[in-house]
Amino acid sequence: MRKPKIVILGAGYGGLMTATRLQKAVGVNEVEIVLVNKNDYHYETTWLHEASAGTLHHDRVRYDIRDVIDGSKVEFVQDTVLEINKDDKKVITETGEISYDYLVVSVGAEPETFGIKGLKEHAFSIINVNAARQIREHIEYNFATYNMEEEKRDDRLTIVVGGAGFTGIEFIGELTNRVPELCREYDIDIHKVKIICVEAAPMVLPGFDPELVNYAVAQLERKGVTFMIGTAIKEATETGIIVGKGEDEVEEIKAATVVWAAGVRGNSIIEKSGIEAMRGRVKVQPDLRAPGLDDVFIIGDCSLMINEEINRPYPPTAQIAMQQGEVCARNLLALVRGGELEAFKPDIKGTVCSLGEDDAIGVAFGKKLYGSKASFMKKMIDNRALYMVGGPSLVLKKGKFNIL
Amino acid sequence: MRKPKIVILGAGYGGLMTATRLQKAVGVNEVEIVLVNKNDYHYETTWLHEASAGTLHHDRVRYDIRDVIDGSKVEFVQDTVLEINKDDKKVITETGEISYDYLVVSVGAEPETFGIKGLKEHAFSIINVNAARQIREHIEYNFATYNMEEEKRDDRLTIVVGGAGFTGIEFIGELTNRVPELCREYDIDIHKVKIICVEAAPMVLPGFDPELVNYAVAQLERKGVTFMIGTAIKEATETGIIVGKGEDEVEEIKAATVVWAAGVRGNSIIEKSGIEAMRGRVKVQPDLRAPGLDDVFIIGDCSLMINEEINRPYPPTAQIAMQQGEVCARNLLALVRGGELEAFKPDIKGTVCSLGEDDAIGVAFGKKLYGSKASFMKKMIDNRALYMVGGPSLVLKKGKFNIL
Repeated sequence: MRKPKIVILGAGYGGLMTATRLQKAVGVNEVEIVLVNKNDYHYETTWLHEASAGTLHHDRVRYDIRDVIDGSKVEFVQDTVLEINKDDKKVITETGEISYDYLVVSVGAEPETFGIKGLKEHAFSIINVNAARQIREHIEYNFATYNMEEEKRDDRLTIVVGGAGFTGIEFIGELTNRVPELCREYDIDIHKVKIICVEAAPMVLPGFDPELVNYAVAQLERKGVTFMIGTAIKEATETGIIVGKGEDEVEEIKAATVVWAAGVRGNSIIEKSGIEAMRGRVKVQPDLRAPGLDDVFIIGDCSLMINEEINRPYPPTAQIAMQQGEVCARNLLALVRGGELEAFKPDIKGTVCSLGEDDAIGVAFGKKLYGSKASFMKKMIDNRALYMVGGPSLVLKKGKFNIL
Repeated sequence: MRKPKIVILGAGYGGLMTATRLQKAVGVNEVEIVLVNKNDYHYETTWLHEASAGTLHHDRVRYDIRDVIDGSKVEFVQDTVLEINKDDKKVITETGEISYDYLVVSVGAEPETFGIKGLKEHAFSIINVNAARQIREHIEYNFATYNMEEEKRDDRLTIVVGGAGFTGIEFIGELTNRVPELCREYDIDIHKVKIICVEAAPMVLPGFDPELVNYAVAQLERKGVTFMIGTAIKEATETGIIVGKGEDEVEEIKAATVVWAAGVRGNSIIEKSGIEAMRGRVKVQPDLRAPGLDDVFIIGDCSLMINEEINRPYPPTAQIAMQQGEVCARNLLALVRGGELEAFKPDIKGTVCSLGEDDAIGVAFGKKLYGSKASFMKKMIDNRALYMVGGPSLVLKKGKFNIL
């Protein structure tokens, strides 16, 4: 008898959690499990802002997928997924096709530029390891070039961050640590450097406790960050950005580096595969399956679930993706072995937003935290993500121990 | 009675040697000595190829001028020299004027592009600390960007070095050490990287022993370097270089990085000041004074002296500049105190060309050297230059001890 074949697309938080939970639960000959991923490594998406700023090396942010996969139970295939053919139950990749009985779609997010002109061409997005190290090097190259030019171009030292959400603020926090180092490295007066956060919404970190947000803004302003809140980016150009000012006016901000951190959407693979979605996110059933597709689970950034309490979608976070992975693994087992599928319910343990090396704000176990306590908690959350996938040995290898 | 005022322009090998030798020899109230330099640091010009490749940090290549200057005898002025007014005996700087009784012009070299189109705009030159770190970052940024692009541009991984002289070969040697590191850092297949040395002359390292040159070329080719000898660069463009091929044909070599290392000339300050020169180099009298200017010494890269044995100019080297500095200091004392001026005679102790971390070729004390022995000798020469200016403490601080 042919073993049921489970194919998992993507080794991000959700996919890797599904794979590692499954491999613990199944016998060697019970199911065939295939994990497909573009790279041979997993990376911590929630740490990419550090690699982008240059405060944490990108090799600290990734680990070999084979280090956490049990090769006797899970086959790892390094390939790029192009499309899902849900009628023929197969996945089209760059090098061929992979058929499945059950599919887990955990292919992650893409930047959402909301059609703003020039953003795709002229702005960076903190989207993967390759992007992170390019941003780091782009900033450094501009600092390195500054003193080489007869006419000093101060815009080489201007970094615009579009978006005052989680990623934007965390990236800015790291920049406030990195910029003094860069200034020493390249003999630059730190007062010439500008970090500007441009946010269209009328507030920083929407959804966060206002008291904590005020703390965060004050701390970052003290370190030289300028906030332009309620200001929309109209266009990104070769030389910077154009923002709206008042009713009809616009203003140009010259900046060599523009990082767009104001939104993500689901993966375009979803739409290419003809699965109904809103901006690449599929409103999944309670058991995490796509509507009308009983053999396809969608988890992580491509899944959309409504938080009934506030009647708004849950944000696409690592915490939720990992919890979905656990439920997805159990539900796959239920399908293979027979049994009830369970409904997914997020359990938000806490949210901490880093403000750089030793500062943060957050809410954990119902308590407001800021400063070094919040920073400590952030590192514990980061270490926990490693622990959940790779156990204590992965924490020892990649964990964060720079604790005050 | 007014003290005679000696002004030294430039704190390179020649100028700094003059200043440090003078301060040892004179009494506190005997003369006024002013040392003018653009930066507050001295850098080892002969080590810049390492900082440019990224194998040695640029802070290892420079030190604070005030660390080696005796403030009770030498006044250090950080300023940029624009022109010498030899009739009024004063120096015009960016911020004002400095009068002198005796002047030492040791303002160093500039790149010589021989009028080749586009070189100034599109090629880098290993000319100072700012340039070195920009080259390092430019190469790294291109490697960082490679994997971010949908269509891979292999020219991002191509480095063209114009010139197979001393600087070109030493820079290439460092690149062969640096490139494997960059490939690991940015997940790049090393076989995609090209290092191409383009030289118009029919040979590598003209003037060097042919047996040693063959060794050098073989070693570098083994490490993947391509030599295009007898090939002239016709033009540098935004996308690479155009070289001559046969009689009338040309060929484009696409390269994101072009480093021009095929020649230096004297400083344009010389010509601006109306001092007779050939490509910024003044044919000085045997006592190192400019012809017809008995109060102006010219040493280092702006001085031109003929080696009578081969009827060709001595090359502009650190070794000669430092020896000139010693003689210049003694001749200044002779002018101030009265006495005979001595004629300068270079004493070429040896020449070693580095081929990277632990390889080199050279001739020292009349003996041919290659491999680790030559590499050791090179590091000793580098340490000696530090010792001559700053004594054992400077060697301990900035010296090279990575000896096999």
